[in-house]
Amino acid sequence: MTAPGSYDPRTFKGLTFHDAVGRFRDASDTPRAYLEHCLEAVAEREPVVKAFAASNVAAARATADLSTERWRAGQPLSPIDGMPIGIKDLLETKDMPTEMGCEAYRGNFPKRDNAAVWALRRAGAVILAKTTTAELGGSHPPATTNPFDPSRTAGGSSSGSAAAVGARMLPTAIGTQVGGSIIRPAAFCGNFALKPTQGGINRGERQATSMSTHGVHAASIEDMWQVAIEIARRAGGDRGCPGLVGATTTPPAIKPQRLMVLETEGWSRLDASTRSAFATLLEGIERAGVVLVTRRTNAAVETLERAIANASTIASSITGWENRWGTRNLVDQNPGGVSERAKAVLAKAEAMSPSDYRALLLEREIAQVTYAGMKGVADAAITLSCPGPAPLWSGDKPGEPLAPRPTGDAVFNYPSSMLFAPAVTLPLMAVGGMPVGVQLMGQPQDDERITGMAGWLAQAIGPVVVA
Amino acid sequence: MTAPGSYDPRTFKGLTFHDAVGRFRDASDTPRAYLEHCLEAVAEREPVVKAFAASNVAAARATADLSTERWRAGQPLSPIDGMPIGIKDLLETKDMPTEMGCEAYRGNFPKRDNAAVWALRRAGAVILAKTTTAELGGSHPPATTNPFDPSRTAGGSSSGSAAAVGARMLPTAIGTQVGGSIIRPAAFCGNFALKPTQGGINRGERQATSMSTHGVHAASIEDMWQVAIEIARRAGGDRGCPGLVGATTTPPAIKPQRLMVLETEGWSRLDASTRSAFATLLEGIERAGVVLVTRRTNAAVETLERAIANASTIASSITGWENRWGTRNLVDQNPGGVSERAKAVLAKAEAMSPSDYRALLLEREIAQVTYAGMKGVADAAITLSCPGPAPLWSGDKPGEPLAPRPTGDAVFNYPSSMLFAPAVTLPLMAVGGMPVGVQLMGQPQDDERITGMAGWLAQAIGPVVVA
Repeated sequence: MTAPGSYDPRTFKGLTFHDAVGRFRDASDTPRAYLEHCLEAVAEREPVVKAFAASNVAAARATADLSTERWRAGQPLSPIDGMPIGIKDLLETKDMPTEMGCEAYRGNFPKRDNAAVWALRRAGAVILAKTTTAELGGSHPPATTNPFDPSRTAGGSSSGSAAAVGARMLPTAIGTQVGGSIIRPAAFCGNFALKPTQGGINRGERQATSMSTHGVHAASIEDMWQVAIEIARRAGGDRGCPGLVGATTTPPAIKPQRLMVLETEGWSRLDASTRSAFATLLEGIERAGVVLVTRRTNAAVETLERAIANASTIASSITGWENRWGTRNLVDQNPGGVSERAKAVLAKAEAMSPSDYRALLLEREIAQVTYAGMKGVADAAITLSCPGPAPLWSGDKPGEPLAPRPTGDAVFNYPSSMLFAPAVTLPLMAVGGMPVGVQLMGQPQDDERITGMAGWLAQAIGPVVVA
Repeated sequence: MTAPGSYDPRTFKGLTFHDAVGRFRDASDTPRAYLEHCLEAVAEREPVVKAFAASNVAAARATADLSTERWRAGQPLSPIDGMPIGIKDLLETKDMPTEMGCEAYRGNFPKRDNAAVWALRRAGAVILAKTTTAELGGSHPPATTNPFDPSRTAGGSSSGSAAAVGARMLPTAIGTQVGGSIIRPAAFCGNFALKPTQGGINRGERQATSMSTHGVHAASIEDMWQVAIEIARRAGGDRGCPGLVGATTTPPAIKPQRLMVLETEGWSRLDASTRSAFATLLEGIERAGVVLVTRRTNAAVETLERAIANASTIASSITGWENRWGTRNLVDQNPGGVSERAKAVLAKAEAMSPSDYRALLLEREIAQVTYAGMKGVADAAITLSCPGPAPLWSGDKPGEPLAPRPTGDAVFNYPSSMLFAPAVTLPLMAVGGMPVGVQLMGQPQDDERITGMAGWLAQAIGPVVVA
């Protein structure tokens, strides 16, 4: 790696797979050689980054060899045949443990594949590793460090997926988001990432919460989309949902006519440098001929801003309530195996009643109805993916209160989660030498469309670097 | 028990709890004595009925003793404090194994409580037993026999819950329905039962399918409602759903003004005796002053009948697709531990694509929209709960093809499942000395209202007995 805090989106180049495929076709490169390249990066970076909870190198090599033969025979299973990929350790994989970042699950090895993992294997992907997660997808952090500065968090809860891609150890990794667990860590680690429309990618049996999605971290829009669509083509969406639909190749760049700039409740938590970087980015977008609509120029946007002004509380409380059975059972079985952070969340959830929950669902639904009313206002929404660069994190201090957000603040992520809206983060800014992402949000089922718009932004708008 | 095939709804009296509560209050009876009465019935009936997959008599007695003390102190936790209850063995209970009627789960003992079980314990209920289930909630039957004729099935998949209540071993038991697994076995065993609105009762972490509900088998409407509302008051509904709402006491009887008679695709499978019994029942309802609306008198009803004409295929295919990951993982891990019936369902599901699934979801949604359009047509729908008495079942014959429906035909149950509609079955008919249920279906969230209408039917309409 380069020196800590010297990330520059204008020069940084992540590890991409889609552009290697041509070389597989003419046999000037192979999936096995690609994997070995990843393993070299793992040997170099993993001791500090600590993105992996487990890995299965032997199985990955065997799978890459089979893929090499398929490409040689001109019969790949899919455009991601041979792609090395990491799987967030909340998802089950039949050949690696699933410990969910939780002491109580130490040694847990259910020997089965989550639906998305099953689909990836059918597409020929090489499942190299389980990537670290904040405990149970919450906020208690793993040991993972930010690939651009080891004194900072990689974000969470998809910490390892974000860090592995940012550290160029893998071209892609699967994350999950219930509050801000895909978009925020991706934004801290310089990734592209897609959090699909709620229900877009089959969660298999992980359906206990009403707003959680599987999504993709990648170093390129092409790989991001290709992984998502290859899963959805095979495993579909969540039960009861139509699932992600779209082209089987990356959608072409789409220039939006109008973008709605959302401040969200995160606006007040922005540091001055990040605010200035975002303002510069928006100026660039306007110069490129896109009309920006804001709460100051459009009353409907103001209505939406108000409807999502308490997104943090609404989203966190809904999720807390929905997770309480699982956490309560776990704590009862293994009181010492669950963090104090998780127990504090449980205590808040257990103080709620069904009617408290219903009131929150109603607030969420009102926000969703309000958001649906924005279809005519703009082609998509644009906002930050995080309120600034990844914060410093060196662990809890014995005897001191627990840090409230050790993996960073999800304040810019709750809106897309509670609106069931697809979101793509783009690594278009650097603040103080660290990545800061910008986020496009579409209407539900607009995943392909906002991916196309993200493609346009990535091509047409120069990244912004501020001190 | 009386002689096989001599069930008479005019004289049969199941085991009720709500009317014992007065005696607990004045201490002329106790929950412990009530439990001992159940245990005597278990000793007498269980060797033939085989309704229990596991039981925990010691824990039940200890809980009943605590309940006895609470009633004595005038401080019961709820109106069902001390009620002995059975839990379908798909649901986890922390003090008994959870084997799901499946060889692959033999010895499975996760030591945690499903959300509904947790709520029941908080309400003071006495969890006496796990009740048998068809394998994984499908159709491969347990050893359970019909309490009114041991040569017949008790129905399924909630076989043990239905049979335990029918055999007077328990006043209530929890079942689950994804296709027809509450209403049908209840109808075969002479129970009342509520299959709530989709999402009405919290399934905890059992949320892998889009149309499965927990529900209640009981010998009385009062106990049926009280159990359902006591769970929902504490655990709410499924994630994202408002959950069952209603009075904390049994709703008063409500006379409907108009009932829509639904034939469903089951009409052609009715035997002549059952058809005649149902016709007689409908005549009684008309005589009592209720207007009956049918596909012949109302074009909207005909539209609905057409929208649900393929309910069996739609519902079964949707559920098969949603269960395929779980079943595939299980078969991969333990090929000999899953029945050929379940493997045949899996093979059909694995031949489906995401777009097949989306097309079925669309058909389901069209049916739901059509059903919502019936709000002005009638106060509720009435139909049979099963196409006749429980069929004979003596097990699969070696070398012969597997019986297609060993626990009976769910053809009358798929509509309420796919419409997400609440349904109550009432034991208002006997055909050939065996129970046959009749079913009220409401609009989603009408659970309390149709319970009130069921109360009126049970009071005002005399049961029908045909040879």
